[in-house]
Amino acid sequence: MTEKAFIREVGLRDGIQMVKEIVPTDKKLAWCRASVAAGMTEVEITSFVPAKVVPQFADAQDVAQGVLAMDEAKSGRFVPATLVPNLKGAERAIALGVPKINYVMSVSEEHNMANVRRSVADSVEDFGRIVALRDQEAKGKVRVAAGIATAFGCTISGAVSEKRVLQLTETLLEMGADELIVADTVGYGNPAQARRILGAIVKAAGSVPVAAHFHDTRGLGLANVVGALDAGVRRFDASLGGLGGCPFAPGATGNINTEDCAFLLESMGFDTGLDIEALVAWRREVETWLPGERFSGAMERAGLPKDFRKPVDLLG
Amino acid sequence: MTEKAFIREVGLRDGIQMVKEIVPTDKKLAWCRASVAAGMTEVEITSFVPAKVVPQFADAQDVAQGVLAMDEAKSGRFVPATLVPNLKGAERAIALGVPKINYVMSVSEEHNMANVRRSVADSVEDFGRIVALRDQEAKGKVRVAAGIATAFGCTISGAVSEKRVLQLTETLLEMGADELIVADTVGYGNPAQARRILGAIVKAAGSVPVAAHFHDTRGLGLANVVGALDAGVRRFDASLGGLGGCPFAPGATGNINTEDCAFLLESMGFDTGLDIEALVAWRREVETWLPGERFSGAMERAGLPKDFRKPVDLLG
Repeated sequence: MTEKAFIREVGLRDGIQMVKEIVPTDKKLAWCRASVAAGMTEVEITSFVPAKVVPQFADAQDVAQGVLAMDEAKSGRFVPATLVPNLKGAERAIALGVPKINYVMSVSEEHNMANVRRSVADSVEDFGRIVALRDQEAKGKVRVAAGIATAFGCTISGAVSEKRVLQLTETLLEMGADELIVADTVGYGNPAQARRILGAIVKAAGSVPVAAHFHDTRGLGLANVVGALDAGVRRFDASLGGLGGCPFAPGATGNINTEDCAFLLESMGFDTGLDIEALVAWRREVETWLPGERFSGAMERAGLPKDFRKPVDLLG
Repeated sequence: MTEKAFIREVGLRDGIQMVKEIVPTDKKLAWCRASVAAGMTEVEITSFVPAKVVPQFADAQDVAQGVLAMDEAKSGRFVPATLVPNLKGAERAIALGVPKINYVMSVSEEHNMANVRRSVADSVEDFGRIVALRDQEAKGKVRVAAGIATAFGCTISGAVSEKRVLQLTETLLEMGADELIVADTVGYGNPAQARRILGAIVKAAGSVPVAAHFHDTRGLGLANVVGALDAGVRRFDASLGGLGGCPFAPGATGNINTEDCAFLLESMGFDTGLDIEALVAWRREVETWLPGERFSGAMERAGLPKDFRKPVDLLG
């Protein structure tokens, strides 16, 4: 039996939130469809933030409605998720029938203030209101994930207390999070830290799934996935072509690359359900849309190994 | 006590062997000196191959003599090593007084034939002659490492038997190798494979050091370092700016990046003795020499994290 590991495509959210060119709604829908065709079981399709804050997401409602109308969404072949920074975003998402809400807040006060314009305590309080809304309006129909940004450090405030990260996740679990998404927003993390932090969080989370969200800003993105796997994490955010970065975190750059992460997981023997060559083909398509952006990724350049998935005479 | 981990700079050998522009001897010497100034304790300074095979190494003798004349070499501050593909190369290196010979052969018959123009059995036999030469001419003065290329797969022949890799390393150990260098020549390896193969080799090697040589062709170079660390490996080949690739392995590209690998190891708590910012500064200098080459690396782009090496409230 091959163990499963999951990638959630976040290119349509994290991937394009710093992209200057506005991607038309129909192209966003095509991207979502192509991701699902390549085997993606969850796609973060947009972000319910004010259009004046991130103009790329002015069409969030249209994207959500378009995605929810797809047969692939109706049949449950994949879960469309939207990022929300506050209760208002959650209300919009739930009213539209989005089945998964990825809430975001930061461990770092400075980044939380820059990103969602309030204190960490206020963000925790708001999470409580979102959970209450879920329980009141959509119990069993909507899942609410708690995303914890800057969990490995912050370009504004520097080092972040690992104990504080664990405390915050414990609080969010107690409040009713359906999933945790632990994010290295600015690419400060290392594999040893990933093992420590995610190991403790996986233990605290029990049956609640824990996802890791890494950025490859300092080259350790996939190395950190190895650390996270050791900690028991089997869910990873990644962005096609390695696009991405937070507009409110100085120096933030791309997410780990979807196609390379799929190669890492598959080559280590995990079943991701993803067609790597289909991902690469679609990434090439997206690259034609955004000629000014920096795409990364080795799979696109080098392709799969000869005899991929056919190792010989394995050692114990 | 911080555990030590070592990087060997191979930019002057693997890094430039596919570079079209011939780097002048004085620049090679400056590169070696800069590496040592940044804390490097071993540098692979050149390759004793015929100039008609790799024109970049036509000055191998001049480079070796220039390096051996440096105070830093005389004082033992670092070990200058040279790659040799056969007995003739080893004779040249020993005659010049080079204290370390890194012999190279492949597990894959096809790559061995393409790279050193003979069978694997013939390469093993030649290693015996090199060890005999060491024992006769330079016992205790020259160390001979056995490099095993294509140990994680081959772009010509495809998958490679892991058991065959182990058998070959055991043979080379029995014959008297002072070190093993296990190479993923074409970037086919993954962290699980690195743990399996290197774990078995480290066990077989006992007190003989085992080094890993990874290429980042498919994006998993630093992830594989994590697997190798788990297997007990503490020595890594890397090339400044991620240059590199074997001229006789189709599709081969750069080594893992020296400055990024140093960041990985230091961030995980290992003491490499390396000054990452000095490495980045020198990489920028080398980049000006080779404007046509593809340099990689995140440290050069993103720099060290704020509060680097000052993690807070670590979790168990």
